[in-house]
Amino acid sequence: MTEQAIETYLNENKDRFLEELKDFLRIPSVSADPSHDGDTKRCAKWVRDHLLSLGMETVEIHETDGHPIVYAAHCKHDDKPTVLLYGHYDVQPPDPLELWHSQPFDPTVRDGKIFARGATDDKGQVFAHFKGIESLFKTNGELPINLKIVIEGEEEVGSANLERWVSEHVDLLECDSVVISDSSMFAPGVPSITYGLRGLMYCEVTVIGPSHDLHSGLYGGAVPNPINVLSGMIAKLHDENGHVTIPGFYDRVRELEAEERAAFASLPITDEEFLEEVGAANTQGEEGFSTLERVWARPTLDCNGIFGGFMGKGAKTVIPSQATAKISCRLVPDQDPEEVAKQMEEYLREVAPDSVKVEFTVFHGGKPIVVSRDNPTVQAACRALQKSWDAETVFIRSGGSIPVVATFTELLEVPCVLVGLGLSDDRLHSPNEKFDLDNFFHGILTSAYLYAEL
Amino acid sequence: MTEQAIETYLNENKDRFLEELKDFLRIPSVSADPSHDGDTKRCAKWVRDHLLSLGMETVEIHETDGHPIVYAAHCKHDDKPTVLLYGHYDVQPPDPLELWHSQPFDPTVRDGKIFARGATDDKGQVFAHFKGIESLFKTNGELPINLKIVIEGEEEVGSANLERWVSEHVDLLECDSVVISDSSMFAPGVPSITYGLRGLMYCEVTVIGPSHDLHSGLYGGAVPNPINVLSGMIAKLHDENGHVTIPGFYDRVRELEAEERAAFASLPITDEEFLEEVGAANTQGEEGFSTLERVWARPTLDCNGIFGGFMGKGAKTVIPSQATAKISCRLVPDQDPEEVAKQMEEYLREVAPDSVKVEFTVFHGGKPIVVSRDNPTVQAACRALQKSWDAETVFIRSGGSIPVVATFTELLEVPCVLVGLGLSDDRLHSPNEKFDLDNFFHGILTSAYLYAEL
Repeated sequence: MTEQAIETYLNENKDRFLEELKDFLRIPSVSADPSHDGDTKRCAKWVRDHLLSLGMETVEIHETDGHPIVYAAHCKHDDKPTVLLYGHYDVQPPDPLELWHSQPFDPTVRDGKIFARGATDDKGQVFAHFKGIESLFKTNGELPINLKIVIEGEEEVGSANLERWVSEHVDLLECDSVVISDSSMFAPGVPSITYGLRGLMYCEVTVIGPSHDLHSGLYGGAVPNPINVLSGMIAKLHDENGHVTIPGFYDRVRELEAEERAAFASLPITDEEFLEEVGAANTQGEEGFSTLERVWARPTLDCNGIFGGFMGKGAKTVIPSQATAKISCRLVPDQDPEEVAKQMEEYLREVAPDSVKVEFTVFHGGKPIVVSRDNPTVQAACRALQKSWDAETVFIRSGGSIPVVATFTELLEVPCVLVGLGLSDDRLHSPNEKFDLDNFFHGILTSAYLYAEL
Repeated sequence: MTEQAIETYLNENKDRFLEELKDFLRIPSVSADPSHDGDTKRCAKWVRDHLLSLGMETVEIHETDGHPIVYAAHCKHDDKPTVLLYGHYDVQPPDPLELWHSQPFDPTVRDGKIFARGATDDKGQVFAHFKGIESLFKTNGELPINLKIVIEGEEEVGSANLERWVSEHVDLLECDSVVISDSSMFAPGVPSITYGLRGLMYCEVTVIGPSHDLHSGLYGGAVPNPINVLSGMIAKLHDENGHVTIPGFYDRVRELEAEERAAFASLPITDEEFLEEVGAANTQGEEGFSTLERVWARPTLDCNGIFGGFMGKGAKTVIPSQATAKISCRLVPDQDPEEVAKQMEEYLREVAPDSVKVEFTVFHGGKPIVVSRDNPTVQAACRALQKSWDAETVFIRSGGSIPVVATFTELLEVPCVLVGLGLSDDRLHSPNEKFDLDNFFHGILTSAYLYAEL
């Protein structure tokens, strides 16, 4: 097996690969819509049959309380590492249909891009791996590593049954690392590995002043106003330099390495471009950190909602009984969501005046994740991307969370390697979702090289 | 004419007075409900006919774009002061009907109280004056002062047409003072004159950060969060001692006189009673002032509403584009609503970071009012209350605003004397509204003594 052989195989089979991808995209496997349950089931079978046709030894459909999970395995080498490939075959609903330039389930190629629901999220990216695996079977006669595959059908509806299924199949899923292609490259032509995700702590705080709404004329000035009090409490959560003031909040924060900061700084994005994207007059955040550092590698505290008193048009002179804010923190390693929730609650209660009652509810959380860039799978993926794109791989992080990553990281205790093959303008979840064929074909090479490199 | 004669006349006619009040209360003059327009018109005629029967020289119905105004005058003395009595014959809707123990328009006496819609607000209080006037005619043969009467039919729907009518009839309404009985005594058996009302400035401020809602994971930490920013701005509106921090805010505030503070302090209310009423854990306000001083005689700043971002149940990880607060200030003499609005806008813009846009809207305002306690009508009312109740009159203020008071004060340029005859438990605007007959009869004496004292 040589890289040359793989490339040749790709070039000889490009048209067929594209036609097969179209078949995959034609199945309207909309997991959120029960009227498509038959299509979703059909799609799971299509994936199973396709994996069998590739040469995978074991291919099974596992039923769940929701949509089925397709599991496959091909493990021929006791002395080689085992990789678990994760993806999903379900797609978002295609609405609003009238905004599509071609039908969402009639895949259409225009300007070197294939347009269809699921093109990039996640059928196109999953299928690049399938064709990478095929290329290895065909050019090498055998896979160079042990490979397990999990393709679920409920990612777009919150992976409701995946966690339980994984926890019940820990032995079956035993592996050295998980590979996921369900995200984007940093920029076109810039191969990227996402090695860090932020965690989350989401809570709600309600401040109760008077036991009932009061007339602001007859009582104003002598009673605790829950909106003013809550605003004061929120204001105390940051200092003037944008640091979070909750005691202990930063205690477990892993500081960025000089090398990471240098790598982030070298990435091709400016604050002007960032501001154009968000439409704000200026950036705002923690002093001493760049925009990418702030969103990728620093913990945050944001109000996600606030409400209380009169919210209609015009004026009503009321002092409301209560006001509520939804507050969340994005967390970075090694912060712990439960600990941060406790710190937040203690601090909020401490800064509240004795004139009010404070109610505090934690909704949910997720642990932050960082994968060592020295990990062999990460290094292999780095080299594979570099070879397939003939460009240097950049290491990026994401400010968001990906629940399945937490599921695999926690239950299987292995690193997840995120090799995004899409682009940020792929319009996932929106009309006219697309996948660049250039990314599809480079993705096939990346997948084959990755397993070969290992 | 002696007080003895008036009292005797009252005692001889009590039963008839009560029956006549019942007739007045039976008319369902609900100004808000067009299906009662006929009743409202009928009620205006009833008032006209009753005033004629008392002996008033001029009695007229003035049509407006809404419900009619009844005007009466009896001015026989060039050398005597002229008093304008204001009241309203319209009532609130009686809903919810099922909570009434007797029908709202079937006046019923129980335990020395008359229950009916309008019993205290304002028919009962108006009718006490009518019977006081009758008593003077009957025992004295003539009124001892010049009297004008305005009874409107739209107070419960915002007196939409009164201001214009007053402005068009300034000469007709020329007087030395206005007397209004449409409020409550400080406590049962404690005759009270309200000599001050707070003014109002009501505005709305919107903070705009990003141009559209953003994912809190992908952007959080680097963009201005309008909820956090707005909370910080609101927090900056007060210092730690509860003082408003807006520059110039207190410049025109008339300080309380030592005598007023002593009078307030002597009133029979404790903070414990106040807290029981409002249901808060503790009072909160401007340091250095008592609860009554805070609500009656100090300016305030209260948020009346706040909203932004996700306000549903559960969690949504959004950074909203904008957040809005409704903010109002209660004002005391000699603050000016327009000036305070300007100060507020300037300060809010000053404390906002350059990362956000700030939109500011002023809704409406009203000037604060204080009537000199040395005013002859105030002094006469004080003596009249004292004699009729055989108890010392207390001078109180109210933290609220009464729009008609501002109308008369500004257009006629005379003081308004507020002689509340009701009680705070009269349930005005609620089911089972009542008026204590004791208050009704003392009110008749108070009215007669007041005009006699002048």
